[in-house]
Amino acid sequence: MKKIYLDNVATNPLHPEVLEAMLPYFRELYGNPLSLYEPGIKAREAIEKARENTASLINAKPKEIIFTASGAEANNFALKGIAYANQNKGKHIIISRIEHHSVLNTARFLEKSGFAVTYLPVDKYGIIDPENVEKAINKETILVSIIHASPEIGTIEPINEISRIVKKKGVIFHTDAVASVGNVPVDIQSPGIDLMSFAAHQFYGPKGAGALYIREGTRIVPLIYGGIQEGGRRAGTENVPAIAGMGKAAELAKINLQKRIDHIKPLRDQLISNALKIDKLILTGHPDQRLPGHASFVVEYIEGEAMLLLLAAKGIYCASGSACSSKALKASPVLISIGIPSHLAQGSVVFTLGEDTSDKDIAYFNETFPQIITRLREISPYAKGWEGMEDSSCTVKK
Amino acid sequence: MKKIYLDNVATNPLHPEVLEAMLPYFRELYGNPLSLYEPGIKAREAIEKARENTASLINAKPKEIIFTASGAEANNFALKGIAYANQNKGKHIIISRIEHHSVLNTARFLEKSGFAVTYLPVDKYGIIDPENVEKAINKETILVSIIHASPEIGTIEPINEISRIVKKKGVIFHTDAVASVGNVPVDIQSPGIDLMSFAAHQFYGPKGAGALYIREGTRIVPLIYGGIQEGGRRAGTENVPAIAGMGKAAELAKINLQKRIDHIKPLRDQLISNALKIDKLILTGHPDQRLPGHASFVVEYIEGEAMLLLLAAKGIYCASGSACSSKALKASPVLISIGIPSHLAQGSVVFTLGEDTSDKDIAYFNETFPQIITRLREISPYAKGWEGMEDSSCTVKK
Repeated sequence: MKKIYLDNVATNPLHPEVLEAMLPYFRELYGNPLSLYEPGIKAREAIEKARENTASLINAKPKEIIFTASGAEANNFALKGIAYANQNKGKHIIISRIEHHSVLNTARFLEKSGFAVTYLPVDKYGIIDPENVEKAINKETILVSIIHASPEIGTIEPINEISRIVKKKGVIFHTDAVASVGNVPVDIQSPGIDLMSFAAHQFYGPKGAGALYIREGTRIVPLIYGGIQEGGRRAGTENVPAIAGMGKAAELAKINLQKRIDHIKPLRDQLISNALKIDKLILTGHPDQRLPGHASFVVEYIEGEAMLLLLAAKGIYCASGSACSSKALKASPVLISIGIPSHLAQGSVVFTLGEDTSDKDIAYFNETFPQIITRLREISPYAKGWEGMEDSSCTVKK
Repeated sequence: MKKIYLDNVATNPLHPEVLEAMLPYFRELYGNPLSLYEPGIKAREAIEKARENTASLINAKPKEIIFTASGAEANNFALKGIAYANQNKGKHIIISRIEHHSVLNTARFLEKSGFAVTYLPVDKYGIIDPENVEKAINKETILVSIIHASPEIGTIEPINEISRIVKKKGVIFHTDAVASVGNVPVDIQSPGIDLMSFAAHQFYGPKGAGALYIREGTRIVPLIYGGIQEGGRRAGTENVPAIAGMGKAAELAKINLQKRIDHIKPLRDQLISNALKIDKLILTGHPDQRLPGHASFVVEYIEGEAMLLLLAAKGIYCASGSACSSKALKASPVLISIGIPSHLAQGSVVFTLGEDTSDKDIAYFNETFPQIITRLREISPYAKGWEGMEDSSCTVKK
């Protein structure tokens, strides 16, 4: 059977060149990077080379890159680290309602620990209004954290504009760019971002490797205390193969970024325009300001998990909302925040293309997807006579 | 040139079978474990299989194992997680003076956050007196965290006795068993430990994989918030290859543990008895109650780093104290706590054997090490006429 992987936002396949770059550090160069002998020194050199390549991808200085084990760890580190380092200045934090769970749940933890958190609304496309950010900042505000692009609805936020406003107010700005870095051009210098989280497995690098960009001079309290690794800001024996892999993936992403975008965007546009022919199907997120390989929908009168299973049975692998919450069986807060009623949010489905996605894959998808919707609606009790159920249908049509 | 790796406590080489077990998850089984399609489901199955093997190594239930990215992360998670979950009951924590930096520095962070911390002394062998633990517990005590075995001086603590006392007092007990698990038999049931940290690269598993054992029913606050991975207790896309590798390494460790000990202990004993013939050289840590592959010394009138470099030049790879502090250029708090004066602590050196260490390696070492000491003392200004400097020499001779 054909197998078409359309869940690149959950994780990318590892690039074969990245695996090659990792293998020596599983074998002869196994040393602890803090050691003073050859296998350790070589491991240390691999980390510093990876730091250069990772920094280069976002136009940062190598010393501004702190390696973590995941994007989630980077987000926790950023929020708690800045909150604890600045709590004497104020205890107010601003995030949006469409943050990833690793930002959202960390903010909730900080709320319980005595910080005040403002959750900014978004419009029907998931866009955060920079004016709302400005209005929300008060004298107690120490941190604004806004997602760069949503993995669930694909919308890319006006980060440069938001960042400029935040910097003008003298507040620290963090962005969760896990879904963006390596997928769209991100230049850390242009808007003056202070902290940015990202993860290697989002650009054909390994799982277990993430990074937090921390602008030079920014004070931060560690999340993981211990030894002197990562300049004392993130302890633990370094995962050398994963870090070396992240460096290689960053190097490849920098070289191939535009080529990858030019390949997947037209295919993604085909997928969307074909899907929109299906009745009672809505594109979620912004129609243009979105990740190039990202297509997300709400299909009315259909349950997302059933859709995933039937698609998987046809060899099409995709997700219903974010991977981190796909099994939580709760309506996605992101979909709720863009105005999708919770019973319709259950019918969400996300297709994300990658560099391996081919014309043929999309042709097969375009043929198969409408058939599956038709079949599911035939057996769905909710779908019977939907013309009479207009009141409950989604109000976010575009 | 001969290359003899005697720094297994810094990190073990990866077992070739472990790498084999990891490779499929870098290739065809790359899916996100939360996904509902085949490459994701297989990844999920690999994690659960690894959880069973990891649990089995310490005689725990699979659901009591939470995977982390390192021993340091597990230690941070244990201390902060238990402190935050129990701060309404009390704000007193007990640790020892020979904890690893990841426990020590986390305790210091908690101290700054309003917790009181008692730092228990050790005797000249690095042993913590269980009676001192009992005396230190008060009504405010919520957590006792004592290292299982010291990576720096090899001493194995009387954990069962300490744990029994702590449990009798109704206090939660954590042990940092990073240097022990996979190297000596550890049965989590026998002393009733509540939480235990360990790391795969200490038993021929990969870097980037650790675990926190959490006894069923123990409340803990996450260190890394986000998605529903690890039962909501540790977020972030799972590092599937590393976790699969940890499982395989645990399986091999369980099968081969006694064989490994029987192989390295006699070799280590040879190394120690030969080294002790050198003048002004002291064994640090307990002579018998110590990790089977561990030999640690203080060599008077010699600077540790010079010793490491000369040894490395002869193909012998070892460490001066713990890997995490070897470049910090500070006298080790562990050595200070066992009564080594700080100027002598600079002359510390640690040799740790592994399953690949051979008779020939140790014969070569036994020949080479005394030569290097002689040479260094010839060029050392401190070594000149040491007979007149007895006052400054170490008082911990055995």
